Amino acid sequence: MSAYSKDVKIRFEDCDPAGIVFYPRFFEMLNELVEDWFEDALNLPWRELVMERQRGVPTVKVITEFLAPSRLGDVLTFHLDLVHLGKSSCELKVDARAGGELRIKFSVTLVHFSTVTLKSVPWPTELRRRMEQYLLADIEMNGERSHG
Amino acid sequence: MSAYSKDVKIRFEDCDPAGIVFYPRFFEMLNELVEDWFEDALNLPWRELVMERQRGVPTVKVITEFLAPSRLGDVLTFHLDLVHLGKSSCELKVDARAGGELRIKFSVTLVHFSTVTLKSVPWPTELRRRMEQYLLADIEMNGERSHG
Amino acid sequence: MSAYSKDVKIRFEDCDPAGIVFYPRFFEMLNELVEDWFEDALNLPWRELVMERQRGVPTVKVITEFLAPSRLGDVLTFHLDLVHLGKSSCELKVDARAGGELRIKFSVTLVHFSTVTLKSVPWPTELRRRMEQYLLADIEMNGERSHG
Amino acid sequence: MSAYSKDVKIRFEDCDPAGIVFYPRFFEMLNELVEDWFEDALNLPWRELVMERQRGVPTVKVITEFLAPSRLGDVLTFHLDLVHLGKSSCELKVDARAGGELRIKFSVTLVHFSTVTLKSVPWPTELRRRMEQYLLADIEMNGERSHG
Repeated sequence: MSAYSKDVKIRFEDCDPAGIVFYPRFFEMLNELVEDWFEDALNLPWRELVMERQRGVPTVKVITEFLAPSRLGDVLTFHLDLVHLGKSSCELKVDARAGGELRIKFSVTLVHFSTVTLKSVPWPTELRRRMEQYLLADIEMNGERSHG
Repeated sequence: MSAYSKDVKIRFEDCDPAGIVFYPRFFEMLNELVEDWFEDALNLPWRELVMERQRGVPTVKVITEFLAPSRLGDVLTFHLDLVHLGKSSCELKVDARAGGELRIKFSVTLVHFSTVTLKSVPWPTELRRRMEQYLLADIEMNGERSHG
Repeated sequence: MSAYSKDVKIRFEDCDPAGIVFYPRFFEMLNELVEDWFEDALNLPWRELVMERQRGVPTVKVITEFLAPSRLGDVLTFHLDLVHLGKSSCELKVDARAGGELRIKFSVTLVHFSTVTLKSVPWPTELRRRMEQYLLADIEMNGERSHG
Repeated sequence: MSAYSKDVKIRFEDCDPAGIVFYPRFFEMLNELVEDWFEDALNLPWRELVMERQRGVPTVKVITEFLAPSRLGDVLTFHLDLVHLGKSSCELKVDARAGGELRIKFSVTLVHFSTVTLKSVPWPTELRRRMEQYLLADIEMNGERSHG
């Protein structure tokens, strides 16, 4: 099983007058993580996905816990696990940490859909095969796990 | 019991190359709704909250279901109910509809905190009194409700 | 000659950790102003322009002077004048004021183009006729003018 | 004389329904470039500049020419030259290219100011000394130059 991680530095533009990250920016970072995962790990850049294949992977559900605030200059490590792979959907668990501290937990459900019909479409075989490499085994999901 | 609603028009800048709203924009809209609720309904503009009182209301948890896509030019009616009012936190239910169609459901937990200490602070009495007017009664929460 | 104005309130999300507006947000406000001018004044919503006609009006040049900072809660009045109308382009002068104070001056050149070929396309006659009503007469441009 | 360059990949979130970059995003990229220049080249992270020193470098003037559109997946090389260094201000020339094509030209004036008084403040000696290393010599500015 593979995992996907990326470091994100909190920029000036991410922060609000209270001096902490304006939380909608975290969803942009989450979306960038998924975009990079598709390109770097699944070998499907969104230019190809959206422009050539006329497909998209809209988020249909997201549960987010913001456990501790983040500030200008902090470096957050985003870590992505695939926890469920359906016929045309998938569920990701993503967390963001700085130092040893857990800052954010996301649970995200994506659907593979046609940008023409706006209806769901099964994952293509080749893409599905690559995604499976990131699927967290059941046994791991039930046990303790750390990636600090 | 009072309720708070606002119409939001989907703009060019909200939409992605797939022709639908880029979902992090919905969290900006949600945040704008809460900002407007504080100013219009609770009589506490965020200029005063943040700049003068050095307080903020960061989002600590948000559960979101995107039930149907939205496109350029759509007008969404956001409707906010206060469903729980704690000592220094509160929980909101927000939905967004276009025509009769339910597009998005949010459940949001906010905390009242100090931007200096980054620790939670009880709601001031005056603000709390105003918020209570928006608190959805238990009986209503258990029954059927429509605001179409 | 007609003019087009709109008030914009500076929101929490527009402001940076220095407590003033993060300047790229002003270009979003400028773009919203042009979008609203097309819909409200020129009778051409961008949903129709982009989605149905497959046209766009990208900005090809913009000169901006930020004369005074703006803060959370400020209300800026954006004022738009059309100063030149070419075959497939136009030039706008936009300023933003708060109270009597001039905060920002924009000079913007837009081109009417095809989103398919990415090449410029002459303004349609009907649209051009409406735009002409906003064209600032030469005599006014040379003289003193106020819209405080 | 030193120069500063950075590659920026056009992401899904940067693009609009017309399939090209929504131009206010380019000002975010420009601001990120200046932020990175301060941290990587001038040794002054904005966390220190803004949070500890209570200083900022707001943009007071920017002239921008968008010469060719950019699309999802394009990689733009941003190149920054310092062309004037005043007592408390500076002027930058920035261009963005993809392949050999010049896409955008920016001319930007920044001012070093206090976030407390909102008034300009002379560059500190140490910072000024570092900036001078990026100052384009007059002779180069008058002659031909390429950085393709």
